[in-house]
Amino acid sequence: MSLREDIEILCKNAGAAAARLALADTEEKNRVLLRIAERLEAQSGAVIAANREDLEAADLNGVPKTMLDRLALSEQRIALMAQALRDLVGLDDPVGRKETWSRPSGLTISRVRVPLGVVAMIYEARPNVTVDSAALCLKTGNAVILRGGKEAIRTNRVLVDLMKDALEDCGFDPHGVELVESTERESAQILMTMRGFIDVLIPRGGKGLIQSVVENATVPVIETGAGNCHLYVDEAADLDMAVKIAVNAKCSRPSVCNAIETVVVHSGIAARFLPMLAEAMAQYEVELRGDAKTCVLIPTAKEATEEDYFTEYNDFILAVKVVGSISDAIAHINKYSTGHSEAIVTENPERAERFQRQVNSAAVYVNASTRFTDGGEFGFGAEIGISTQKLHVRGPMGLAALTTEKYLIRGEGSVR
Amino acid sequence: MSLREDIEILCKNAGAAAARLALADTEEKNRVLLRIAERLEAQSGAVIAANREDLEAADLNGVPKTMLDRLALSEQRIALMAQALRDLVGLDDPVGRKETWSRPSGLTISRVRVPLGVVAMIYEARPNVTVDSAALCLKTGNAVILRGGKEAIRTNRVLVDLMKDALEDCGFDPHGVELVESTERESAQILMTMRGFIDVLIPRGGKGLIQSVVENATVPVIETGAGNCHLYVDEAADLDMAVKIAVNAKCSRPSVCNAIETVVVHSGIAARFLPMLAEAMAQYEVELRGDAKTCVLIPTAKEATEEDYFTEYNDFILAVKVVGSISDAIAHINKYSTGHSEAIVTENPERAERFQRQVNSAAVYVNASTRFTDGGEFGFGAEIGISTQKLHVRGPMGLAALTTEKYLIRGEGSVR
Repeated sequence: MSLREDIEILCKNAGAAAARLALADTEEKNRVLLRIAERLEAQSGAVIAANREDLEAADLNGVPKTMLDRLALSEQRIALMAQALRDLVGLDDPVGRKETWSRPSGLTISRVRVPLGVVAMIYEARPNVTVDSAALCLKTGNAVILRGGKEAIRTNRVLVDLMKDALEDCGFDPHGVELVESTERESAQILMTMRGFIDVLIPRGGKGLIQSVVENATVPVIETGAGNCHLYVDEAADLDMAVKIAVNAKCSRPSVCNAIETVVVHSGIAARFLPMLAEAMAQYEVELRGDAKTCVLIPTAKEATEEDYFTEYNDFILAVKVVGSISDAIAHINKYSTGHSEAIVTENPERAERFQRQVNSAAVYVNASTRFTDGGEFGFGAEIGISTQKLHVRGPMGLAALTTEKYLIRGEGSVR
Repeated sequence: MSLREDIEILCKNAGAAAARLALADTEEKNRVLLRIAERLEAQSGAVIAANREDLEAADLNGVPKTMLDRLALSEQRIALMAQALRDLVGLDDPVGRKETWSRPSGLTISRVRVPLGVVAMIYEARPNVTVDSAALCLKTGNAVILRGGKEAIRTNRVLVDLMKDALEDCGFDPHGVELVESTERESAQILMTMRGFIDVLIPRGGKGLIQSVVENATVPVIETGAGNCHLYVDEAADLDMAVKIAVNAKCSRPSVCNAIETVVVHSGIAARFLPMLAEAMAQYEVELRGDAKTCVLIPTAKEATEEDYFTEYNDFILAVKVVGSISDAIAHINKYSTGHSEAIVTENPERAERFQRQVNSAAVYVNASTRFTDGGEFGFGAEIGISTQKLHVRGPMGLAALTTEKYLIRGEGSVR
C-alpha cells in the first residue's frame, strides 16, 4: 500500500470518529480528557522510556542541545501535561452555543457552534504539543490527525496509544486521535492535499513549513506562528520604559514567535536612545544590526541588509532602523512584518491611537511588551497557536477557533 | 508591461486606498454609497449604452439567451441597484465593534472589528454584482478589485468609472474600486496568486472556477455558491407537504445554488410518494433520474449514474434516491453534498433533530424549502455570497464576513 493510501485510510477513520465526537456532550468529552490525564500519569514510565530512546537517537544524529531540551520529557513535565488536561476540563465548551431568531416568513433560525470535524496538525519536536493539541481538538468535539517530527516519533507513538486507549475507555472510537507514522517530508505533503477528508490543517513550525503549506495545500489552513515583530520607540517615548520593554521583548525568550526582531526608532530621540539600547542589549550579548544612522550612533552594530528586516531571527540578534516620522515607522512595519505583534512606546495619546489603527497586525500594543501575545495572557485559558492570517481567527486561538457554525432552520411546510 | 505587472500595480494602488478606507467612519462610507446611487441614476444613459454594446457583442458570439437576460440592464434594473445602495446605508457597520477587558498583568485588551483590507472578486456575467459587491466592500472599509466576465466588460468599465468618481467626490482615493481590464483566463489565475496584496479572494461562479481557485490560489479564499442540495422525505413525512417543498425547492428557480438537485426518499413511503412527486414534477417538465427502485415506481424516470448524484444540474432535472433508513439518507447526503443546504420533511421530532445534527452542511432545514438560504431571508440585510466552507464564515455572508478582528492592548510599561 502506498503512503497516500495509508494516509487516506487514516483520514477516513478519523472522519468516522469525528461524526461520533461531534455528538458528544461536554461531560463526555471532559471524561475523555480526565482519562487521558490518568493514563498519562499511570504510564509515565513507558512514556519516559520511549522518550529516552528518542533522545538517544537524536543525540546520535547530532540534533542540537536546545532541541534536545524541547524534546525531553520528565516526570515533572508529564505532571504539567496532566495538569493542563485537568485545567482544560474547566473551560467553557463553545460547541452548542446558540442564537435563535424568527423571520416574517415563519421560519425559526438558529445559529449553533459545531466542531470543524477533522483537524490535522503538522508540528516539530516538542511532544507536549501532541497531547495539548489532541486535547483541545477533543474538547471541541473534533477528531485529530497528528503528524509530529521524526525526533519525537517513539514518544508520540506511546502518547497517541494512550490517548486512543482513553477514548476507548470512555466508549469512543480510538480513531478520534490518529498519528501519521511516517515522518518523511512526503507525508506532510500528502496531508496538505487530503481535500474532502481534512477540515482544517494547522501547521506549527518554521517559515519553510508555512511556505510549503501556502504553496501546496488544497485543504483549508490556519497559518500560525510566523512572528517578525517590531517595537517602535516614538519621539515622545519614556526612554527608560522603552529600554525595559525592548529587553523584555527581545531577551526574555528569543526563540518564541512573540519576541521582537527589529526596534524602529524615531530620529528625534535616536542619539539619546540608541546608546541606552546598546548598553542594555550588551548585557544579553545581543548582536545589533542597523541602518547607516544606527551604525553611527552604535559603533558596535553591524550593517543591516534588506533581508535582515524580513528575518525572524529567533535568536539574540536585533535589527534597528531609524525613521523620520511615525508614518515611516508604520510603513516600515506594514512592509516587513508577518502581521503578528507590534508595539509602540509613547506618551503621546494621538500617536498611540494612530499606531494602533494603522499597523496591520493581529496584536498592537501601547507601552507594553509584544511577549504578551498568548492565549493564557489574553485570558482565553488555552491556546492552539497564534494565527497570523485574517480569515477565521486572528491572534491567539482559543477553543472557539476549532469550531464553525451551522444554521438550523424550522418551518411548517414553508416555501419561498 | 506584462499582465502580471499590470495587475500588481492595480493591487498596490488598491492597497494604498484600503489604508485610507479603513480609517473612514460609517458616515463617510455611507456618503460614498449614496453618491454612487446618485451617479448611477444620473448616468444611467451611459450605462445602458455600454450595456447595449455588450449585449450586441454577446449575441454575435452566440451567448445563450438566458445569459443575455442576466447581462441586460434597464432603467428599472438600475433603479433597483440604486435602491440596494440606499438600503445598505441603513445597515449596521460591523467595523469598530469592540469588546474590552482587563487582565491581572495590568493590561487592558480590546478586540475590535476591522476591515479585511483588499477584497478581490472573480465573477461572471451579471453586471449588478459589480456594484453590489463593491458597495458591500466599501461599507466595510475595504478596497475591492473586480474581475468580471468578458460579456459584461463594457458595462463594468462604465460602472467602475462612476464608482471611482463617487469615491473622489467624497474625498477618497479612486483606487478603492479597481477593475481588471483583462478578461482572459490568465488574469484570474494571476489574481489568485497575488499573495501579500489581496487579503481575500471571493470567487462567484461555477464548479470550474471554484476548482481552479482551490488548486491555484495562494491568497486566502472564501469559496461560495456550490450548491448540490438535497431534500430527504422521511417515513414520517406529511407527503403533501413534501411534494410542495420539493416543487418549490426544485422549480421556483432551478439556476440558483439553493435549489435542490436530489430528492432522497425513505423506502417505507416510496411507493406512495414517488408517483405524487412524478406527477407534480411533470407539470414543470422536470426530468427525473433515479436509482433502480425509483425507476420501478416512476416508469418515466431515467436511470441515474453515480455522477448524477454529484451533479449540480442548475436545471429542470432532479435525481432521486430511495434509502432504507434515515442513517442511509444522512450518509448519502454527507457523501454527495457540497455542504450548502439540505432539508428533511418529517413529523417525527427525534428524526428531525438527528438530521439537523448529523448532516454536515451550512443550513439544515426541517419542513421548509432549501430556497430560504439567503442573506435577506435570514435577516442579514445584505449578502456577498453563500460560503460553503467551514472556516471564517459558513452559509449566507453578511457584512461581518468582510471584516476581521484585531487586538489593541495598552500597558504602562508592562513586561512579561
